[in-house]
Amino acid sequence: MAEYRAPLEDFRFLLSRVFQIEHFWQSLDKPGDVDMDMANAILGEAAKIAQEVLAPLNQSADAQGCRWDEGEVLVPDGFKEAYQTFCEGGWNGLAGSPEFGGMGLPKTLIAPVEEMVQGACMAFGLAPMLTAGAAFAINAHANDELKARYLPKMYSGEWSGAMDLTEPHAGTDLGLIRTKAEPQNDGSYLLSGTKIFITWGEHQCSDNIIHLVLAKLPDAPAGSRGISLFLVPKFLVDAEGRVGERNQVSCGSIEHKMGIHASPTCVMNFDAAKGWLVGEVNKGLAAMFTMMNYERLLVGIEGIGVAEASYQSALRYARERLQGRSASGAVAKDSAADPLIVHADIRRMLLSMKALNEAGRAFYLYVAQFLDIAKFSGDAKRREQAEALVALLTPIAKAFITDMSLDATIHGQQIFGGHGYISEWGQEQHVRDVRITQIYEGTNGVQALDLIGRKTVACEGKLFSVFYQEVQTWIEAQKGEQHDKYIKPLSEALQVLKSSTEKVVANAKENPHNAGAVAVDYLHLFGYVAYAFMWARMAVEAQSQEVKGEFSPAFVEGKQASADFYFGWLLPQVSCLQQRVETSAECMMNLSEAGF
Amino acid sequence: MAEYRAPLEDFRFLLSRVFQIEHFWQSLDKPGDVDMDMANAILGEAAKIAQEVLAPLNQSADAQGCRWDEGEVLVPDGFKEAYQTFCEGGWNGLAGSPEFGGMGLPKTLIAPVEEMVQGACMAFGLAPMLTAGAAFAINAHANDELKARYLPKMYSGEWSGAMDLTEPHAGTDLGLIRTKAEPQNDGSYLLSGTKIFITWGEHQCSDNIIHLVLAKLPDAPAGSRGISLFLVPKFLVDAEGRVGERNQVSCGSIEHKMGIHASPTCVMNFDAAKGWLVGEVNKGLAAMFTMMNYERLLVGIEGIGVAEASYQSALRYARERLQGRSASGAVAKDSAADPLIVHADIRRMLLSMKALNEAGRAFYLYVAQFLDIAKFSGDAKRREQAEALVALLTPIAKAFITDMSLDATIHGQQIFGGHGYISEWGQEQHVRDVRITQIYEGTNGVQALDLIGRKTVACEGKLFSVFYQEVQTWIEAQKGEQHDKYIKPLSEALQVLKSSTEKVVANAKENPHNAGAVAVDYLHLFGYVAYAFMWARMAVEAQSQEVKGEFSPAFVEGKQASADFYFGWLLPQVSCLQQRVETSAECMMNLSEAGF
Repeated sequence: MAEYRAPLEDFRFLLSRVFQIEHFWQSLDKPGDVDMDMANAILGEAAKIAQEVLAPLNQSADAQGCRWDEGEVLVPDGFKEAYQTFCEGGWNGLAGSPEFGGMGLPKTLIAPVEEMVQGACMAFGLAPMLTAGAAFAINAHANDELKARYLPKMYSGEWSGAMDLTEPHAGTDLGLIRTKAEPQNDGSYLLSGTKIFITWGEHQCSDNIIHLVLAKLPDAPAGSRGISLFLVPKFLVDAEGRVGERNQVSCGSIEHKMGIHASPTCVMNFDAAKGWLVGEVNKGLAAMFTMMNYERLLVGIEGIGVAEASYQSALRYARERLQGRSASGAVAKDSAADPLIVHADIRRMLLSMKALNEAGRAFYLYVAQFLDIAKFSGDAKRREQAEALVALLTPIAKAFITDMSLDATIHGQQIFGGHGYISEWGQEQHVRDVRITQIYEGTNGVQALDLIGRKTVACEGKLFSVFYQEVQTWIEAQKGEQHDKYIKPLSEALQVLKSSTEKVVANAKENPHNAGAVAVDYLHLFGYVAYAFMWARMAVEAQSQEVKGEFSPAFVEGKQASADFYFGWLLPQVSCLQQRVETSAECMMNLSEAGF
Repeated sequence: MAEYRAPLEDFRFLLSRVFQIEHFWQSLDKPGDVDMDMANAILGEAAKIAQEVLAPLNQSADAQGCRWDEGEVLVPDGFKEAYQTFCEGGWNGLAGSPEFGGMGLPKTLIAPVEEMVQGACMAFGLAPMLTAGAAFAINAHANDELKARYLPKMYSGEWSGAMDLTEPHAGTDLGLIRTKAEPQNDGSYLLSGTKIFITWGEHQCSDNIIHLVLAKLPDAPAGSRGISLFLVPKFLVDAEGRVGERNQVSCGSIEHKMGIHASPTCVMNFDAAKGWLVGEVNKGLAAMFTMMNYERLLVGIEGIGVAEASYQSALRYARERLQGRSASGAVAKDSAADPLIVHADIRRMLLSMKALNEAGRAFYLYVAQFLDIAKFSGDAKRREQAEALVALLTPIAKAFITDMSLDATIHGQQIFGGHGYISEWGQEQHVRDVRITQIYEGTNGVQALDLIGRKTVACEGKLFSVFYQEVQTWIEAQKGEQHDKYIKPLSEALQVLKSSTEKVVANAKENPHNAGAVAVDYLHLFGYVAYAFMWARMAVEAQSQEVKGEFSPAFVEGKQASADFYFGWLLPQVSCLQQRVETSAECMMNLSEAGF
């Protein structure tokens, strides 16, 4: 049986030491009243709900799944009560605007809370994720009346949110959507069409469900410039905010899928459902995209949450399971066999997981800092630079973290041998669950195209040079030979990334397919360098006297060993990626379709 | 919906051209009456049963799964009838000894049949796989009476087979098993104990189930030197071969697992069940291992079967699904969007799959040749050399092929975007199914330890030099500059593998953990070089006039493009693996257990 422990010591290490977060928060304008004491209290409470309320449901909820019954969706046993507890704790409103009852906390504090929720039970965690995302878009783009009517109940969790984008023939290419919105005399619209893959689109946990729906006005231009965003509640809401009659939106069925069985994935039918415009006509895609950076970062966080759960479970198993003898002679002499953890190959897998997970955690916090600066800083120049880094790093945080998280969960499952394939042990569920993070919120291929196209080639590497300068500045600030073993390979890898970036920009001019051909490998190359930056920072910090005094010796030892492993074992991947990234698309594009 | 087409053109290319198989068969002693006409007829018939009988069941059988009911196991609808059809076609006896009604065909012909069966419906394919494995061990080690009584019915499929090795506390480490065998006066034994993970251990498709069970005699030495092998039928069989009373072996439950839902994975209880010794007392593990090379190669073949099905499905989707526009301008101008296959990133994934699958197919046939020589050649020296290559290459064929097959199915699923996560489209099942191939029949980590330990370090690289010479000889025989682009990188990669092998042997002397630490990466390095050898051979052959005359232009073009992609895109992985393989275990072994 799997058991989940919140990684509080690592959160504390990253926040208080690596990112000097108290000082960081003080440098911002609004969340100035957050300090480390308050943060520790919030993280401690979140750990409790994750460990005691959500994690115990994870396996049974997966086994039971959701059930569709004549338009209603029944979620697994215990979810409704857990949702209630979650709402009562105020966890839906952490990021919300204080004007409407939200707590207005910084992402650098919310992100660890999200990791715990997702790590404990990802299928459950998608409900608050979608609510927060929908509320974010409403807060950014809706008029005051809509905000006042909907946001307070969404921040409290009484009403949940859903995002209705995809249609059967339109996934990545949203310009193809067909859902229609007919304007009415009272300023509202009637929406008709079918949406698929709607996460938590229908359920009975909340009193209302607020759908944000992409649709086209009758006279809209073709393609993505003709899409508008609408708010469509499951139940209509009167002027006093009371839930009234059922709107013409209904769930036609739910999908059977590989994982996140306990998260209902709905087909939603809109039959002249009443809705209200959010933002400007034909600017729906842009309105939707304002929250995309938050959502995409959160998908990366989900990856870490699940991979951390997988690691904990694999580590426990490796310590307990007796099988074979150590290559250097029996260790547990009184037992018939040694625990798995004596074997080098098992340690290789555990260290791969640990090195990838902890780098990913540091990296999502690193990106969260720039989201906070962009939102809360009073300094326009600082905001601008942070926005550049958010734009550049978000696709990496989404795609690289989740690609590495699949690798990590595969390792976790492998450590269990045959038992890893059996549902009872929980490891195969982690693999099935984490797999969706590589696919939704824009597939990882689409993230890579965003990174290499809009964020690299289009600006001729200008965004990259902002990141490059960040890393260079940090490297130059490091003193002391004891850091050389991290700084030197980081520096070399950074130079590889720089020259590969230049090559990518140059190659893109020769052939329009060159960027697409190397997109995923370029994103991976970037990711390995970003993780090297994180490990260098963690390793240097772990060597400091302050950390040695404040953290357990095992924790400090583990950090250093993981850094060594990362640089010795994982970073060499850069050499292969560089070779690929600098080649052309020729060998892919020349083949005729019939030749595949 | 997924549809499976047997890759007959590729089989024909590999058999008749790359491996000159007719000439090869003529060089052997016994299967001398097989020729290419007969082979084509058998492959054609196998394709029919795979496409028309098995493939249509694959998805519904996964959705329905198996059901345990008071000791009986019900397999999915259609399986019993399919099993009947399979038996009537004589497909269980292909490899069987002609003395007892088998067909005695070479593995080089059986392997493609196995790929088709496994690719069409792996969960079904495990039934004949286990029967063939059990029959193989009986044929090799049982006395004449047992052979005569059991083999004919197993070759006909009237009785199926199962292998009962694992116990709850003993997986990789079979020395720990506790199942007891008490000798009786009549020469039989009474077996008591519990076995888990018994594939097709109980079902109603055949009239009897023949279990091969590892157990210990009361006075057996501890550990793996005290294990004997027993034949335990579900129903006792009288002297005339008639099925009689039920033996004391029963199925206590079946597992819920990640994939192969339609293959029952049973807990088997032996309560003083009657059994007969197979082979010598205390030599059970060795007896079991005589068939291990066949079984392990077949697991690699399963990987290719499933990955091929995934490729076909992804290719069809990439041609049909309209989404986005080509980077070089609209291709399908009359449609709202272009098919996915215009995008370089989609082509990268398709070509990765194609290059990995076709190299894996060539490689399993390459290894199958040595199994055939070892079994059928009259030349002792040739047999000895073939046995060396079987020993060396089998762990690679099992583990590298299946690791690459997981990568391939992940690509196949990714090409489908969100639809890849939905059961209806069949891609997520391929990922779930293929995942077990990395785990069972010895995890891929165990394969790697076998390769680097017994097969490399223990013999100081002697087995490797046999392989090295094989590749060198082929390289030296190639004439013509047009082949340089394959021969040169193959040659370089081979030298890397050679120097890494030497380094591995040297490092193992310094620290007993060094080999284990790099085992999986060494196996992968070896695998990439072996696949490069396969692609060089295929590419050279594809350039020949004979092939251009005999095969479709699209097929030939596809072969060359895949070879180019393999050398340009996949082989560079060697540089990263070399760096890892040549390092020491220090960074893994120094960390205390508490530091993880």
